[in-house]
Amino acid sequence: MPSTSTAQRLAKGQKEISVSEFFEKNRQILGFDSPVKSLIMGVKEAVDNALDACEEAQMLPDITVQIEKVDQKEYRVTVEDNGPGIMPTSMPNVFGRLLYGSRFHAVRQSRGQQGIGISATIMYGQITTGKAATARSKVEGAEAAKEIDIVIDTKKNMPVILREDYIPWNEVEHGTRVSFYMNGRYVNGRQSVYEYLRQTAIVNPHARITFIDPDGKRHFFDRATDVLPPRTKEIKPHPDGIELGTLMNMAKATKERSLVKFLQNDFNRVSERVAREICSASMLPETTRPSQMTLESCKKLLDGIGQVKIMAPQVDCLSPIGGNLIRKGLKHVLDDVKPEFYAPPVTRDPKVHSGNPFLVEVGIVYGGGLPRDQTVQIYRFANRVPLLYQQGACVITKAIENTDWRRYGLEQRGGSGIPFGPAIILVHVASTKIPFTSEAKEAISSIPQIQEEIELALKACGRHLKTHLNKREQKNKTRAKFEIVQEIIPLMAEKTAGILGKPVPDLRGTITKIMDVVWIDSSVTFEKGRHKVDVTIYNYTPKQQRFSIHTIVPNGCLDEKRCSLAPSEVKDGEKVSWELPRITSTEIYKLSYELSGLDAEAYQDVDLYVSGINPVYVMGADPLPGDWDVEGLNYTESEAAEPEPDPEEAEEEPDYDESGEDLNDDQ
Amino acid sequence: MPSTSTAQRLAKGQKEISVSEFFEKNRQILGFDSPVKSLIMGVKEAVDNALDACEEAQMLPDITVQIEKVDQKEYRVTVEDNGPGIMPTSMPNVFGRLLYGSRFHAVRQSRGQQGIGISATIMYGQITTGKAATARSKVEGAEAAKEIDIVIDTKKNMPVILREDYIPWNEVEHGTRVSFYMNGRYVNGRQSVYEYLRQTAIVNPHARITFIDPDGKRHFFDRATDVLPPRTKEIKPHPDGIELGTLMNMAKATKERSLVKFLQNDFNRVSERVAREICSASMLPETTRPSQMTLESCKKLLDGIGQVKIMAPQVDCLSPIGGNLIRKGLKHVLDDVKPEFYAPPVTRDPKVHSGNPFLVEVGIVYGGGLPRDQTVQIYRFANRVPLLYQQGACVITKAIENTDWRRYGLEQRGGSGIPFGPAIILVHVASTKIPFTSEAKEAISSIPQIQEEIELALKACGRHLKTHLNKREQKNKTRAKFEIVQEIIPLMAEKTAGILGKPVPDLRGTITKIMDVVWIDSSVTFEKGRHKVDVTIYNYTPKQQRFSIHTIVPNGCLDEKRCSLAPSEVKDGEKVSWELPRITSTEIYKLSYELSGLDAEAYQDVDLYVSGINPVYVMGADPLPGDWDVEGLNYTESEAAEPEPDPEEAEEEPDYDESGEDLNDDQ
Repeated sequence: MPSTSTAQRLAKGQKEISVSEFFEKNRQILGFDSPVKSLIMGVKEAVDNALDACEEAQMLPDITVQIEKVDQKEYRVTVEDNGPGIMPTSMPNVFGRLLYGSRFHAVRQSRGQQGIGISATIMYGQITTGKAATARSKVEGAEAAKEIDIVIDTKKNMPVILREDYIPWNEVEHGTRVSFYMNGRYVNGRQSVYEYLRQTAIVNPHARITFIDPDGKRHFFDRATDVLPPRTKEIKPHPDGIELGTLMNMAKATKERSLVKFLQNDFNRVSERVAREICSASMLPETTRPSQMTLESCKKLLDGIGQVKIMAPQVDCLSPIGGNLIRKGLKHVLDDVKPEFYAPPVTRDPKVHSGNPFLVEVGIVYGGGLPRDQTVQIYRFANRVPLLYQQGACVITKAIENTDWRRYGLEQRGGSGIPFGPAIILVHVASTKIPFTSEAKEAISSIPQIQEEIELALKACGRHLKTHLNKREQKNKTRAKFEIVQEIIPLMAEKTAGILGKPVPDLRGTITKIMDVVWIDSSVTFEKGRHKVDVTIYNYTPKQQRFSIHTIVPNGCLDEKRCSLAPSEVKDGEKVSWELPRITSTEIYKLSYELSGLDAEAYQDVDLYVSGINPVYVMGADPLPGDWDVEGLNYTESEAAEPEPDPEEAEEEPDYDESGEDLNDDQ
Repeated sequence: MPSTSTAQRLAKGQKEISVSEFFEKNRQILGFDSPVKSLIMGVKEAVDNALDACEEAQMLPDITVQIEKVDQKEYRVTVEDNGPGIMPTSMPNVFGRLLYGSRFHAVRQSRGQQGIGISATIMYGQITTGKAATARSKVEGAEAAKEIDIVIDTKKNMPVILREDYIPWNEVEHGTRVSFYMNGRYVNGRQSVYEYLRQTAIVNPHARITFIDPDGKRHFFDRATDVLPPRTKEIKPHPDGIELGTLMNMAKATKERSLVKFLQNDFNRVSERVAREICSASMLPETTRPSQMTLESCKKLLDGIGQVKIMAPQVDCLSPIGGNLIRKGLKHVLDDVKPEFYAPPVTRDPKVHSGNPFLVEVGIVYGGGLPRDQTVQIYRFANRVPLLYQQGACVITKAIENTDWRRYGLEQRGGSGIPFGPAIILVHVASTKIPFTSEAKEAISSIPQIQEEIELALKACGRHLKTHLNKREQKNKTRAKFEIVQEIIPLMAEKTAGILGKPVPDLRGTITKIMDVVWIDSSVTFEKGRHKVDVTIYNYTPKQQRFSIHTIVPNGCLDEKRCSLAPSEVKDGEKVSWELPRITSTEIYKLSYELSGLDAEAYQDVDLYVSGINPVYVMGADPLPGDWDVEGLNYTESEAAEPEPDPEEAEEEPDYDESGEDLNDDQ
């Protein structure tokens, strides 16, 4: 066959592929690669949209998900929300066209960003069942809802409306309901619709979610708070890491007529001063016309941007879950396993990847009933959406694997890979643009900046874990020593005395000499809406001791009248100090206080601090941190108590070693 | 803010997103997520296209890849091939438009399938450097090459030609050269352009690849064979697992006017008899008009297809690498570590996923200088393309993790996860459509049918490994026993004889009674273009032995004149048998033979077989397989020698337990 004809034959075969045709043939890219996962994907896309719409309109979401079994393979999924609704004219494109949406161009945190999800779901349903989807929506003030039966013409990527009606929908003021048929398989377990909704509820405590499973059983995830997360603000692109191509497009499109104004008005965090600095660092006149900038001058500008220090983006374009909610969410999930320790969650400051702000949050839970001989469990979230699949492809997993957990008390062969131990590691990445590895949005790409931030957060949280484990070990050792001393010494004394025919001596002084420790124990009991805290202080030192003890209580809850000793100070309604009386050697002193107005589980761990005594002699309380006056003691506490500061770990902004990337990837 | 306005505001923001705009913002999905990887991706897309085009035209590929450093971040990549060329009119769309191509609709194995790769690469280059790409192509018989400078209008996903010329390109008869600038980083190591090209050469031994690195150094991967892999045949969709939607589209589009003809002519492997069976199983008249089939009758048809046994697809739409080339490729790579064992590669028969034929090949290498205290190395290939990234996301990795390697002699905590040990596992998946997890084509989705096939192939290959390790252990044990016996018994005898004042007895009979084994050792030496093989047979049994010994030599290489004993038979020029003379107890017999005309490394391992003796008494040779007459002895050998058939493992087609999928995924 002469080669010209190959070229001609190839040319003849070449044609355009419509985006929906592409995804029809590659639906695994959208996450529709197994029946179980497909059903979860379908629910997820519809719920993501509902949550986004409610957040957009600042409404408390009330979402109902129903899955009905049609036959052996086919299910019907219905998702209804109380959101602002969709304009009747927009409905065909929203539900029937891929790559169509409102959030793609916005620099703001949201769940949907691609304009693919719900229409891809409808397309998948149509491919596997041959049936149309039905969408109904009512906007506030409208008299009726619009309802459409819709399929997608995949060759053209255009909606085809099979039926449209206006129908009364008096039960609701506004909202959207979409239902579609799809092949799938309903299961229970770690990767299931139920689990997806449960994890969604954890990180969206303002949402109320009702789930009706195929057996008709109702599951109800009530909202834990009526406070909406603040609506994330849309910002301009941040100049850090911006791509040359993007910069050139922006320069071409701007309305500004000088470079300095362009920088100042089209970018996030560029003040006039910074804009001038950039111009000077780029060696470009401030009056340069952006629209006339050449490739060369754009490259200079990019270099200039790289030389000027620009503030990190505002946090308000992002919606972190926050330490309290992370802790609460985890506690809620782990009710049954009763972990021994919740490391204070770490929320990092916003950073930027390719001009997109992002931040990382990490929480670690340890011990209790968590399985000891397995790899740790990883909970991954991106913009408050749980990621159940493709753990191995995710930068979160890579960052965990790339961290030497042996330093933080977990078992890990060779210091890399997923560690073993009774722990859960939760990581949330929030960004105005999450760089997912595929349209299925199941895993985050290994962007070096993001991996670095996750690793720093993991290390910070890991240090809390290590501190706890060190304390536990120290306490266990001291307790063991104490028990041995208390048992053996009297026996030895008795025996010796018997042999020598002398009376058994008083050994308390000897024991205290050996122990040389002030031992502090605390316990909390809850009864009739009140927490009672008992603190017991044993002076096992050979000297008398006089010191102060401090703790933090939930604001305004301390019942000062019911303290066994009046506090010497109560600061900001939460920082309580007691000046203890003199405690002589071998004496035991008991202190108690009461809290009122709290839920039972709202106060379980007592963190105690001491001052006026060398803290190396104290077991069961930490030295009072230097910033007792400062907010967020919980966090700084462990840093102050850090037993072995680790010189190898630069906590803040190490120069990122890019040469590591080929080694770190895919290990 | 009233909600209507939210709906209106959202509606106003909604717009179409062009596919190139989408990938511009989500270039990590295309694999452009780090500078190192981007450079590899760019080379890969261009090389994939070159190999595909040459294969299409049945030409032996001659490909030159050059990478030049422009500045700190910027590189220029040039890839030139001797393929059939691209028609001048097609060039703009091929290089300047995403989702445009000739291979998307074909049911045939090829590297590119998406119509995204090269244009996405050019787009990435344009975004990061602002520079146009240059493409030049000449088709056979043309007087000049067409050359264009091209950029992509990402808002419209359309090519923009900045320059076009016809220029003489007399050095070549036909071919294509594309060069583009991109931000990247050139590195060496496990994930590098060099490694990608090296692995490409391994699985494409018919290609000649020249690589000029940024330092100007030339690396040359010569072709190992002049035989082109047969051009894969385009086939019709196979009915197995076909989607309802696809079926409905096919029924609507067919030219056939009866169901039975439609089935027979539009599908792979459906004969008239099978077509009739399907009609009857579907309870649809054979004369049904396909174009008028309803949703209900299409569903019935799908059910009917599921009930009828349909032949697996022909292998000729696929291009397996083949056991020999896998072994050769691996040997080539592992020259320096000298592994102790290459398990005979396993190639499974073609199977079907969603109507797409596929097959799986697996090879395992063990021991030698491979690192012992690390996880095994995994080499992944899809349609002869090495996959260097996203190992954790790939069904190949999942299948490996899901296999209990402890049964096959590798260390693996809890029987799941990537095993540890001195081994390399190579897996190649060939398919008319590889279901990649994303457009970056770095990992294969967890399609249950594919995972199952990989696991079966891994187990089959794992059994070879286990057989080898068992033999080795048995041999080591026997050798240890032998050494002890040979050392201790004479010492004991001497001592005892001394005490009793008697002469030291002849112990050979005693030793053979204890050992009771025929020990066969072999060694190969290479000198002056000849292989000399020495086989030593020790009769450590108390009886005389008479048996035959057999081996396979490369065809026609045996120099019969130089055998120490004339063979009793030489079958097919390669199967050689010797009838050995009687060997008395404690006697040592030596056999030698020579081979000529082979490269040094072409003959290193001697596989010996015995007959006429109970094989349980023989160390160092296997029982002669029952199918000594059948080709592929290498493979059946280990199965015959299988020491412990494993009842828990169904080798062929276990009913796939779908309920496993939620557990297996992402572990």
